[in-house]
Amino acid sequence: MTSDTSRRPLLLIKSGGAAALPDWRDAFAEFAPEVEVREWNDPAVDANAVDYALVWQPDAGRLGRYPNLKAILSSAAGVDHILADPQLPADLPILRMVTAETVQRMAEFTVMSSLMLLKDMPRIIAQQAASDWTEFATPRTARETRIGIMGLGALGLESARMHAQLGFITAGWARSPRTLEGVECYAGPEQFGAFLARTDILICLLPETEDTRHIIDRPLLQQLPAGACVINVGRGSHLQSEHLLAALDSGHIASALLDVFDQEPLPASAPFWRHPRIIVTPHGAATPSRRERARQAALTIRAMESGAPLQHVYDRQRGY
Amino acid sequence: MTSDTSRRPLLLIKSGGAAALPDWRDAFAEFAPEVEVREWNDPAVDANAVDYALVWQPDAGRLGRYPNLKAILSSAAGVDHILADPQLPADLPILRMVTAETVQRMAEFTVMSSLMLLKDMPRIIAQQAASDWTEFATPRTARETRIGIMGLGALGLESARMHAQLGFITAGWARSPRTLEGVECYAGPEQFGAFLARTDILICLLPETEDTRHIIDRPLLQQLPAGACVINVGRGSHLQSEHLLAALDSGHIASALLDVFDQEPLPASAPFWRHPRIIVTPHGAATPSRRERARQAALTIRAMESGAPLQHVYDRQRGY
Ligand SMILES: NC(=O)c1ccc[n+]([C@@H]2O[C@H](COP(=O)([O-])OP(=O)(O)OC[C@H]3O[C@@H](n4cnc5c(N)ncnc54)[C@H](OP(=O)(O)O)[C@@H]3O)[C@@H](O)[C@H]2O)c1
Ligand SMILES: NC(=O)c1ccc[n+]([C@@H]2O[C@H](COP(=O)([O-])OP(=O)(O)OC[C@H]3O[C@@H](n4cnc5c(N)ncnc54)[C@H](OP(=O)(O)O)[C@@H]3O)[C@@H](O)[C@H]2O)c1
Repeated sequence: MTSDTSRRPLLLIKSGGAAALPDWRDAFAEFAPEVEVREWNDPAVDANAVDYALVWQPDAGRLGRYPNLKAILSSAAGVDHILADPQLPADLPILRMVTAETVQRMAEFTVMSSLMLLKDMPRIIAQQAASDWTEFATPRTARETRIGIMGLGALGLESARMHAQLGFITAGWARSPRTLEGVECYAGPEQFGAFLARTDILICLLPETEDTRHIIDRPLLQQLPAGACVINVGRGSHLQSEHLLAALDSGHIASALLDVFDQEPLPASAPFWRHPRIIVTPHGAATPSRRERARQAALTIRAMESGAPLQHVYDRQRGY
Repeated sequence: MTSDTSRRPLLLIKSGGAAALPDWRDAFAEFAPEVEVREWNDPAVDANAVDYALVWQPDAGRLGRYPNLKAILSSAAGVDHILADPQLPADLPILRMVTAETVQRMAEFTVMSSLMLLKDMPRIIAQQAASDWTEFATPRTARETRIGIMGLGALGLESARMHAQLGFITAGWARSPRTLEGVECYAGPEQFGAFLARTDILICLLPETEDTRHIIDRPLLQQLPAGACVINVGRGSHLQSEHLLAALDSGHIASALLDVFDQEPLPASAPFWRHPRIIVTPHGAATPSRRERARQAALTIRAMESGAPLQHVYDRQRGY
C-alpha cells in the first residue's frame, strides 16, 4: 500500500475564470509551493484527487462530485454563493475569505461612502453631469452625524472603529450584546428600533441568512429619521429594492450608495442606475487582491493539513 | 462733544446677498446683539458710521469709502477676493474666516476626496452613467498610499492629521520646517522635489500668493510618480489648467478632484465638466454655516472693541 501523505494537496479553483489561473499559480508558488493548483474545468483532473476547492459561485452539483474533498474555501467573505447549491455536501467545512486587506478595504470604503452621502455627492455628481455650478453647503459635519452599522463581525467592527476615529457618532447592532470603546452597541430585535431611531446613515454589513433577508424594507426605513441615508455593502438580498425607491421618492430617505444587488451584474434595465439620489458601485467595496486571497487560502490549507485550528469557518447552526 | 464709545458697532455685510441678511441678523442677535447689522447696498447707511465690513468679493473701491472702518472681515478663509481691490485701504487689518467648523469640514472633505480617487470613483461614476457593470479592484489600500499636502496652515494641519489617523502615509510641505507626529514634514523650495517624488495623492491647501500662483504646473506634475492623483481645494489660481489636462490625457496623472477654479462659477464651456477623470465640486469643500461664521465674526469684533489679541490676521509681509 502506498501512503497518501507525501502527495501534494490538490486545489481546484473557480474564481476569475481560466484567465486568472496564472495569477493564482504565481501566488501559490510564493505562499505554498506544495499546493498543486488546477483550474475548475481542467479535464485532466481526477475527481478522486481533489483535496480543496477555492470558489466563487460554483456550478450547482459540482462540489458533490469530489469524494475526497476536505474543505470548501470561499473566494469571498460571504458564502451565500456556495450555499445556493442544493446538492452541497452537508458536512464539509466552508471557510469564509476574510483577510486583513478585506477588513481594511471595507472600513475605508464605508467611511468614503458615509462622507460622500454626508456631503451630498449624489447632488454634486448630478450637477457635474449637467455642467451646473450651484454652490451649496451641507448642514452637518461628521461630528454631528450618527452612523449606525448593522453587523459587528470581522468587517462591521473595523468599519465602526474607523468611523468613530474620524469623529462620527457611531453605533453598531449585532445579534449578541458587546462592549466597544467609542461605539454604542445595540443587540437583538428588542434594541433594533432604538438603534434605527438614532441613525442618520445606516450601513448594512450583515451576512445573508434567513433572518436578514429583506431586512432593509419599508418598516425599517420608516424608523430611520427623516433625511437619513442608506449604504448597502452586505448582500443584495438584504434590500427590498422597491421599498428603498419609494422612500427615496417620498424624500424620507435622502440618498443611498449600493454596492451589492439581487442580480449581479446589475441589469441595464434596473432603475438604480439612473436614480439621481443613488450611487451604484459594482461590488468592489472590499475585494482583496488575488495575491492576498491566495496567501489566506494557503494559510487555511496548511492549517488543515497540520490539524491546526481554523479561522472564519462558516457556522451551519448560526447560518453565518 | 459726544463720546463715540456708547455707540453700537456697525457691521456692513456683503456675503450671500440681500437674501442672506435675515440669517446674518438672527445669528448676530444670538452671538453679539450689540452689533448693528446692515446690508452692503443699504442706502440708509452713513459711510462715516461703518466700523466693520464682512465681505466676499467686495466691489472694487468700496472698502476705501468708509473713513472710520476698523477692520475687514473676510467671509472665507482666503483673502484673495479682497486683495483684488486695487484701491484697498493699505493698513486696515484683514481677518481670515477660519472657524473650527471650517477646519473640520476641510479635513473631512480632503479625506473623502483621497478615498474617492484611491478607489477610482471617477471610473465608477462614468460606469454608472453608462449603466456599465464592470467589476474591478483597485491596487492599493490607504496604508500603501502616500498623501502629500501642500500647506500646513490652519486647514492643512488638520487634514494631514485626519489622513494619518485613517492610515494613509502622510506628508506635508510648508514654508517653514516643523515637527508633527505621524506626518513627515518638508519645507521650502529645496525639499519640494523630494516631497513630490514620494506623493501618490497631492492635495493643495496653500494660500494664493505670488509664490504659489500656478504652482501646479507641468514641472510639478512631472515630479509626481506615474499614476498620481491631484486634489485642489486651495484656489483656482494654483492650477495651470492646461498642464493638468495634458498630464491626465497622457496618463501620467490618473485623476483629479477640483473644488476651486480661476473663474467661478465655472463656465459651462470649461473642459473640466466633461472630463471622465475629473470630479468637479462647486467650491464647497469647507463652507461653514452662516451661523458659525457670524459666531466667529462676533468674537473678532468683540476682541477688536476690547483691544484683545486677534486670530487669523492676514499678514501683508508674508502675503498670507
Ligand atoms: N460588498 C463587498 O465587497 C463585500 C465584501 C466582503 C463581505 N461582504 C459582506 O459583508 C458581510 C459581513 O461580513 P463579516 O465578515 O463581517 O461577517 P461576520 O464576521 O459573520 O459578522 C456578521 C455580523 O452580523 C451579525 N448578525 C448576524 N445575524 C444577525 C441578526 N439576525 N441580527 C443582528 N445581527 C446579526 C453578527 O452578530 P454577532 O456578532 O452577534 O454574531 C455579526 O456581528 C458578509 O457576509 C458579506 O455578505 C461584502
Ligand atoms: N475650497 C474651499 O472651500 C476652501 C475653504 C477654506 C480655505 N480654502 C483655501 O485654503 C487655503 C489654506 O487655508 P489656511 O487657513 O490653512 O491657510 P494658512 O493658515 O495661511 O496656511 C498656509 C500654509 O501654506 C504654507 N505656505 C504659504 N506659502 C508657501 C510657499 N510659498 N511655499 C510653501 N508653503 C507655503 C504656509 O507655510 P508656513 O506654515 O511655513 O507659514 C502654511 O503652512 C486658503 O488660503 C484658501 O485659499 C479653500
